[in-house]
Amino acid sequence: MRDLLRVPEGERVNLASYAADATPGRPVDKAAGILATAQMGERLTDLQERLHAASTAGDRRRVLLVLQGMDTSGKGGTVKHVIGQFNPLGCRIKAFKTPTPEELDHPFLWRISQALPAPGEIGIFDRSHYEDVLIARVHELVPPSDLGRRYGRINNFEQSLTDDGVTVIKCFLHISYEQQRRRLLRRLDAPDKHWKFDPGDIDERALWPAYQEAYEIALERCSTAHAPWYLIPADRKWYRDWAISGLLLEHLDMLDPRYPKADFDVGLARKRLLSDGGS
Amino acid sequence: MRDLLRVPEGERVNLASYAADATPGRPVDKAAGILATAQMGERLTDLQERLHAASTAGDRRRVLLVLQGMDTSGKGGTVKHVIGQFNPLGCRIKAFKTPTPEELDHPFLWRISQALPAPGEIGIFDRSHYEDVLIARVHELVPPSDLGRRYGRINNFEQSLTDDGVTVIKCFLHISYEQQRRRLLRRLDAPDKHWKFDPGDIDERALWPAYQEAYEIALERCSTAHAPWYLIPADRKWYRDWAISGLLLEHLDMLDPRYPKADFDVGLARKRLLSDGGS
Repeated sequence: MRDLLRVPEGERVNLASYAADATPGRPVDKAAGILATAQMGERLTDLQERLHAASTAGDRRRVLLVLQGMDTSGKGGTVKHVIGQFNPLGCRIKAFKTPTPEELDHPFLWRISQALPAPGEIGIFDRSHYEDVLIARVHELVPPSDLGRRYGRINNFEQSLTDDGVTVIKCFLHISYEQQRRRLLRRLDAPDKHWKFDPGDIDERALWPAYQEAYEIALERCSTAHAPWYLIPADRKWYRDWAISGLLLEHLDMLDPRYPKADFDVGLARKRLLSDGGS
Repeated sequence: MRDLLRVPEGERVNLASYAADATPGRPVDKAAGILATAQMGERLTDLQERLHAASTAGDRRRVLLVLQGMDTSGKGGTVKHVIGQFNPLGCRIKAFKTPTPEELDHPFLWRISQALPAPGEIGIFDRSHYEDVLIARVHELVPPSDLGRRYGRINNFEQSLTDDGVTVIKCFLHISYEQQRRRLLRRLDAPDKHWKFDPGDIDERALWPAYQEAYEIALERCSTAHAPWYLIPADRKWYRDWAISGLLLEHLDMLDPRYPKADFDVGLARKRLLSDGGS
């Protein structure tokens, strides 16, 4: 999955050239994809436990999954269906909203630093510091020179994370304009989905080309060797879940975390337990 | 489940009189229990979404599940298997460890207040403020008069939570001395479980009667009308998961959170979406 979906470092990205309903890599169809995702789930849980176990012996490694994409692209669905496979105790999930006044009083990476996974954890960002070069660019929230500097700051920040043992996996959930329309209409058609709908989303949708351009620039400037971007065709939810599960699995497999060896006398502990009374 | 497992308010509790391998309430056997738990999972997810949806329209209600129990009683297993059924994005899980120096500089309820669920969330405490009347009592970490005052403080604190819309569900996972021995031995028998084992656990185990007494006092003094304790026989993991799922389901059913009604013109939004260009 990594080689298939990675955005090449430093290359110009043209999102229009990527079909959002494509299914690169395997699964032949939806049923096979869903089954394969569920099968990966067990291996993911096992690797997560090993990662956590290793951290209890001083291993500082951890994973950070960054999810970005337009409204309805499936960031929340990915958390529910992919991250839902992990043991929740070892996950640290943060959904980034409009910055609070306190957050705005700090450099843009400050609130990100507060939400990082601890050693042994799987961190998940539903939106991230990339909003600061996406919505910030589209709505001109900062002067162009400040914006321009942010890409380098992000790359340095992510470099410092990887230096500290964080495996950074950045996924852009790529949906088509038409698919977003269908998903928004579906929300309108179901009264129990109205709470997810904000008429302001239609105004944002009018800025689609500007957002696509902002994503293209972010993907080009910030897909680095240490923290590459992955472009996930996301019109098909089952494919999205399968691809992101696969990415997580490949990265965790590479980390290959090990259960620490006992630092105590196992035989003695067993003897003490067997002789400590009771019936 | 609530009536079946609730610790009666103000009554003396004798833990020895409760069989830890009992299965009060339904499921006839393990297979039926596991199936019933999975079936509850779907309803739990649905109710959780409704709770979250309601919070977006100002509903401040939320749930706090408190898990307490001796080592190996299954607090972590409950999080994995019961809470794992929820959407992780709406869960706020906190495992309380030995207090940090900063935490010790504050009143004992301070760190608890930092970890409460926000409106619409399901909060889960793996250990809690009850450690401050359990380990603190057994190891005499505070003077008896201070300890004695803590029960009332806890009750007042929990009253303030329920006043603020928090449904507090406190579960004591009740295992037998023999069952703990079996589970600890199982950890010793599997090298990939050694990391979970600490020889200090055997020293703590020697204090079993003192801990049982500390639990009895906490259950008696802090099982209140607004925040009752539930005594969960936990020797059988499938029963524990079934009972706690059932408790969560009953409480969420009673809350009966509703999807908020649209506060915008649905027809207009549909019209705008259908006419906003693209092919």
